[in-house]
Amino acid sequence: MDNLRIDGDRLWQSLMDLAQIGATAKGGVCRLALTDVDREGRDLFVRWAEEAGCTVKVDAVGNIFARRPGRNPDLAPVMVGSHLDSQPTGGKFDGAYGVLAALEIVRSLNDLGFETERPVEIVAWTNEEGSRFPPAMMGSGAFAGEFRLEKVLATKTVDGPTVGEELKRIGYAGPEPLGGRPVYAYFEAHIEQGPILEAEERPVGVVEAIQGIRWYDVTITGMEAHAGPTPMEVRKDALLAAAKMVEAVNATALAHPPHGRGTVGEFRIMPGSRNVIPGSVEMSIDIRHPDADALAAMDGELRSALERICDAAGIDGRIEQIWYSPPTPFDAGCVAAVRRAAERVGEPFMPITSGAGHDAKYMAQVCPAAMVFIPCKDGISHNEIEDATPEDVATGCAVLLHAVVEKALETT
Amino acid sequence: MDNLRIDGDRLWQSLMDLAQIGATAKGGVCRLALTDVDREGRDLFVRWAEEAGCTVKVDAVGNIFARRPGRNPDLAPVMVGSHLDSQPTGGKFDGAYGVLAALEIVRSLNDLGFETERPVEIVAWTNEEGSRFPPAMMGSGAFAGEFRLEKVLATKTVDGPTVGEELKRIGYAGPEPLGGRPVYAYFEAHIEQGPILEAEERPVGVVEAIQGIRWYDVTITGMEAHAGPTPMEVRKDALLAAAKMVEAVNATALAHPPHGRGTVGEFRIMPGSRNVIPGSVEMSIDIRHPDADALAAMDGELRSALERICDAAGIDGRIEQIWYSPPTPFDAGCVAAVRRAAERVGEPFMPITSGAGHDAKYMAQVCPAAMVFIPCKDGISHNEIEDATPEDVATGCAVLLHAVVEKALETT
Repeated sequence: MDNLRIDGDRLWQSLMDLAQIGATAKGGVCRLALTDVDREGRDLFVRWAEEAGCTVKVDAVGNIFARRPGRNPDLAPVMVGSHLDSQPTGGKFDGAYGVLAALEIVRSLNDLGFETERPVEIVAWTNEEGSRFPPAMMGSGAFAGEFRLEKVLATKTVDGPTVGEELKRIGYAGPEPLGGRPVYAYFEAHIEQGPILEAEERPVGVVEAIQGIRWYDVTITGMEAHAGPTPMEVRKDALLAAAKMVEAVNATALAHPPHGRGTVGEFRIMPGSRNVIPGSVEMSIDIRHPDADALAAMDGELRSALERICDAAGIDGRIEQIWYSPPTPFDAGCVAAVRRAAERVGEPFMPITSGAGHDAKYMAQVCPAAMVFIPCKDGISHNEIEDATPEDVATGCAVLLHAVVEKALETT
Repeated sequence: MDNLRIDGDRLWQSLMDLAQIGATAKGGVCRLALTDVDREGRDLFVRWAEEAGCTVKVDAVGNIFARRPGRNPDLAPVMVGSHLDSQPTGGKFDGAYGVLAALEIVRSLNDLGFETERPVEIVAWTNEEGSRFPPAMMGSGAFAGEFRLEKVLATKTVDGPTVGEELKRIGYAGPEPLGGRPVYAYFEAHIEQGPILEAEERPVGVVEAIQGIRWYDVTITGMEAHAGPTPMEVRKDALLAAAKMVEAVNATALAHPPHGRGTVGEFRIMPGSRNVIPGSVEMSIDIRHPDADALAAMDGELRSALERICDAAGIDGRIEQIWYSPPTPFDAGCVAAVRRAAERVGEPFMPITSGAGHDAKYMAQVCPAAMVFIPCKDGISHNEIEDATPEDVATGCAVLLHAVVEKALETT
């Protein structure tokens, strides 16, 4: 396999060509799921895949599968891909990179006349972002049996139509059954969407797991009072207690290094008047850790902190967990394949944990899976200024190629 | 003066009668300055004052002066009063108590056939609340020369008309010149609007000063980033820094006991998304202290804290003082008169500092002044549930009577 290589220029050109569809003035992309521009992007991908000799099939939720045959059609395929939809003010790389890196693998294998034992299937999952139709990772989740078909098709956006109606309208309500077929392995390349690889100057991240996430709503209720006449010692200042809770969230994350994360992203105070002591605060908490036990320990620490802070202040604190996404460790064999692939490519790499969700999360529920990360500029994603270098884009694709080929040559 | 007394039942009945004008369903009052209900309230007060034998005059900004003559018409009057306007969801006592306690003093002096050397003038100041036309304490400030007449008359509310237009419309653009005449002493009775007297079980507060106030706008700017992939150690979390600043404001106030106050009443984070580390926070700071040097020290401590917090986090913090109201110590002679009056009445009293502004603040700039506070239920004011007991209302009025009479008997 020493001669395996990809064409970085071709991959970069394809990324830039696709980014024209839904291009924004600020250099980003707005290609919301199941819109006309999403259809344009899908059509371009399908044309490219067919030009590369693939057989293209679309399932009932619009997931697109483009298959390059292997020597043995009875073997389950190695699947590789990501998504084509974007955030409303998204970038050129999030999702698109994973699909077009998969396409580049097929194109390169064609160029080399390289035959695999197993079929290689490029996949473009429907509606990974969830920006127009919640939830996120809809297509892969439906494929993995996480969401029922009827419910997915009935999902409405705020502007009216359902997923089912939009799929029909853009011509991507396909005849293929949804999931329920064997996949030998799933790989996905993606920009990191964080700053670690860039800071460590490693162009490749071997993704070992996706962090578990717990989301909470917290309400802290004190007592409104006039900022002037009310002595400090009788106040029931909801903001002061909430501020201590913000620090506690941070401390909880720091107590579980290096992977623990804790963030308060929503924070509203009432009544919000300059000379009134805040009577109540509503805030969100987002904690993450790749280990379920550590995440549970963080949960306990948060609850204790809230109780301690509120009891000391004589005010009321309530916390409710509204979402739990368990940690997803990737398959050891697939992770090892990515690591060996990175060694073969010869560029610096490092193990990494994904802090964000990806289609690979749901695929890991139904088959062995792993991911390849490449750096993105300043760690910025979900933003029109999202950027990556042609060199890193090519390196990540080469690693993906080696991992896919290793698995696609396995016959047992 | 041992026979000096007021009629608590009559005072209470007048308060309840006035509270019918602009009464709200929740038991409060909405009598915004220069509205039709404000006119109704003014008309009732003028009628009562005239029935009590007073000569009523109105000045160019609608301040109402109701004079009970003294033996010597050449002596400057003792002025006593407060305001009749309310907050949009105000209570029955804020302002109204001070005006009707002054009226009750005149009525009681009439009942007793008690002659003073100096005239006693009841005053009802225009627009103390500033809810409809900013700023607060407009009438007393104009009388004291703090605001120019033309500017006051040109002040517009959001719904269109100016102060001048509304004064004419309701018939309270009076012919009397604005201020510029001697006032021998000014007294004002008011509910405390705080919890101290109630907690200390003292029906009378001898107000020694009005706290100085500094208002600030603070902007803390970090860096938005994804809550998942961004390691704790590289974050520039604006909310975390702002939370530490909230604690610093509290600590600064606690470091200047017992009068220091520190409040963050406005607090907004951007972008306010559950899985995004906040990029910036805008917050207000309100600090108060009756001593100007202590208030200046608190100012320095706040600025140091912000610099320390932001430098440690590697983020940007800006603080701008947008308002300074210097501390107002009341006249020692008037405060002593109130203290002696409280001793004569024989109910428990204590010295107190006003945390809120009052018309007495501006009057203290042009004549000797002091205030009498009475408790309000749970320290709550600017609220429809604002409440006070008939006993405390009567006690405060009796104290006011003794203080006014002491000064009104002075001939030099």
